[in-house]
Amino acid sequence: MAVNSPLPVAADLKPIAGIRLGFAQAGIKKPNRKDVLVMALAPTATVAGVFTTNRFCAAPVQVCKAHLDALHMSDAPIRALVVNTGNANAGTGDAGLAAANATCSALAELLECEPAQILPFSTGVILEPLPVDKLIAGLPAALECLSENNWYAAAEAIMTTDTQPKAASSYVVINGIPVTMTGISKGAGMIKPNMATMLGYLAMDAKVSQSVLEHMVKQAADQSFNCITIDGDTSTNDSFMLIATGASELEITEIDSPEYLALATAVNALSQKLAHMIIRDGEGATKFISIAVEEGRDLEECRKIAYSIAHSPLVKTAFFASDPNLGRILAAIGYAGVNDLDVSKLDMYLDEVLVAKSGGRNPDYREEDGQRVMQQSEITIRVKLGRGEAKTTVWTCDLSHDYVSINADYRS
Amino acid sequence: MAVNSPLPVAADLKPIAGIRLGFAQAGIKKPNRKDVLVMALAPTATVAGVFTTNRFCAAPVQVCKAHLDALHMSDAPIRALVVNTGNANAGTGDAGLAAANATCSALAELLECEPAQILPFSTGVILEPLPVDKLIAGLPAALECLSENNWYAAAEAIMTTDTQPKAASSYVVINGIPVTMTGISKGAGMIKPNMATMLGYLAMDAKVSQSVLEHMVKQAADQSFNCITIDGDTSTNDSFMLIATGASELEITEIDSPEYLALATAVNALSQKLAHMIIRDGEGATKFISIAVEEGRDLEECRKIAYSIAHSPLVKTAFFASDPNLGRILAAIGYAGVNDLDVSKLDMYLDEVLVAKSGGRNPDYREEDGQRVMQQSEITIRVKLGRGEAKTTVWTCDLSHDYVSINADYRS
Repeated sequence: MAVNSPLPVAADLKPIAGIRLGFAQAGIKKPNRKDVLVMALAPTATVAGVFTTNRFCAAPVQVCKAHLDALHMSDAPIRALVVNTGNANAGTGDAGLAAANATCSALAELLECEPAQILPFSTGVILEPLPVDKLIAGLPAALECLSENNWYAAAEAIMTTDTQPKAASSYVVINGIPVTMTGISKGAGMIKPNMATMLGYLAMDAKVSQSVLEHMVKQAADQSFNCITIDGDTSTNDSFMLIATGASELEITEIDSPEYLALATAVNALSQKLAHMIIRDGEGATKFISIAVEEGRDLEECRKIAYSIAHSPLVKTAFFASDPNLGRILAAIGYAGVNDLDVSKLDMYLDEVLVAKSGGRNPDYREEDGQRVMQQSEITIRVKLGRGEAKTTVWTCDLSHDYVSINADYRS
Repeated sequence: MAVNSPLPVAADLKPIAGIRLGFAQAGIKKPNRKDVLVMALAPTATVAGVFTTNRFCAAPVQVCKAHLDALHMSDAPIRALVVNTGNANAGTGDAGLAAANATCSALAELLECEPAQILPFSTGVILEPLPVDKLIAGLPAALECLSENNWYAAAEAIMTTDTQPKAASSYVVINGIPVTMTGISKGAGMIKPNMATMLGYLAMDAKVSQSVLEHMVKQAADQSFNCITIDGDTSTNDSFMLIATGASELEITEIDSPEYLALATAVNALSQKLAHMIIRDGEGATKFISIAVEEGRDLEECRKIAYSIAHSPLVKTAFFASDPNLGRILAAIGYAGVNDLDVSKLDMYLDEVLVAKSGGRNPDYREEDGQRVMQQSEITIRVKLGRGEAKTTVWTCDLSHDYVSINADYRS
């Protein structure tokens, strides 16, 4: 059960002119489940992405990066994205790279384009060889059912340990021209060192130049997918892709324009929603936790402290237990690596409850107030550093028995 | 099934210092269900409300108004609100007034205060005598379980045809002082001439002077409960009450202050959430529809047009059927009573789809685009009048077979 996150409604997912989606049951890991997704793009489309910073990045991520880099030296646009579940094709060495390239070649042949015009993605178990023959054998079926209306099925096709598909749409009217956007995502949650992936795909019908789209995807990720964490592990396959199909009349070629701002605001909001869906469906999650760090000297120290709290297993299990053992949060702030932090200026709130004031326990704080907030399903921790204007928010979930069960059982 | 509205989580409902809630099963209409709610207030509390404009306003509404008016000539604050379901005590003449007054007297005796310090509310069938003896007999049980933590049960206790309880909390920190607020509501939906009621109660721990609270509740209602409609019928019992318990250190005595603005903004947002919950759980509702009317000459004409659309059974059944029979919307605009409306300046959108342009069908409009949006569970109709700066938004739901079934069966 995802935390306060109703199932998406298929009819609410808007088709985006210029992108068609098809899926197949290729039997990559298990039979009778959708495990291949193809997103076919109009030739007018631009694509940009951000990827995992994990040094062991998976073979398909390496191929994606190479094909996106090649866009700067070529006029041949990306024509399709292909995603498989059931196997991450990571930690698979040269054979893995060959498998990713073979996937691109096979799809390119079917779509009559070049392999470099394909972006491959994989998610699932790592350190196991990708059954690339099965994947390739599934491609014709995926192409056969290509449709603009397959977003819900697409969201299902990329699920792994997710308990429900994640998808949403929105639109914005800019200069009288409507832009629609639909995105899908999948979670998340892993126990080191070898599991899971976060994937996000957001498509819109605006026309956006490649360099502008690259800027837009980075700032969107920085306010959404880069601000969530289940367990602090960065997977080998994490990717967030922004697609502008160019089917709408709205064209964005400059970052310093009101049109860019309007579009980026809408993209950020939808990205955030897709990112939150991942947290709400985090493995075993029972609580959705926002961690706001304010009054920092710079963004970096705010992020350090927010992630230090978000990643602390002591903090996360206390949230699961609804135990206001809030000294654990102060401890996580203390070891966050902000060396000149003056804790005597620090205030900490749990929702509206002022727990710590000027670095110590607020004299008016009552255990029962903290206890009450800890029992909620949605909780905000707010830390005020009292030394500047910078701020950030990071979202996470608690750490439950089920998290352990799910991950212990993942390969069975 | 409410439209995209998950059940509230009991632990997320924040207790508000200075208000305790107790309930009872008094058997007013049916046995074994909570049908009496008492909200007992600290002596520091202020209370203000807005009520139905229906000329047949129910006996308890008349008594409420008289008791609130008396506050201006007395130092004796309101000490409790009492709500019963199962019977609206409306259209009941002098006997109804006597019953409402008897309820106040009985509760006042138990709480050792004056009858004028009690506010009574009723909801349920009208034109039937209130079994006041049963109601009064239930009061001691309600007082026995008074607790700050009973918000979820309170939301259940005021339900009638609602399929789920409606409740939410929020908080805001103003000048370093936290203010928490929790509200409950019940819907809504009636077939003329004799059914149902909308009730809303929002309590916060701020200290707000009586005159300021009266201003705050009006503007909150104007942006929330006064902007929703299931079927256009104004019930005999509709009430929205704002309670400031005075338990927090934050005191608001002036409307022209940043503190007022911050608090009112939070109150408005929570009121809107509670109001939306009513629409999402509208009788038989399958869709949540926002109607935004923009570029009007004044607010009144925007509201006229928005409500004309929202109340049209032709429009509402078309939404239920997902039938893009959008001329019905134009017709509803046309008969809204804005006599000098120049339709040649009018544009209409269904979500991002421009359906009508300059008063006629948009040449680029395709039926399939309208069809697609009509199938969604959340839809925005946007009408631009092209003659000014005023705007408003009204929320409603569709009109389904189930609406008729529910209301036809209501008294069985």
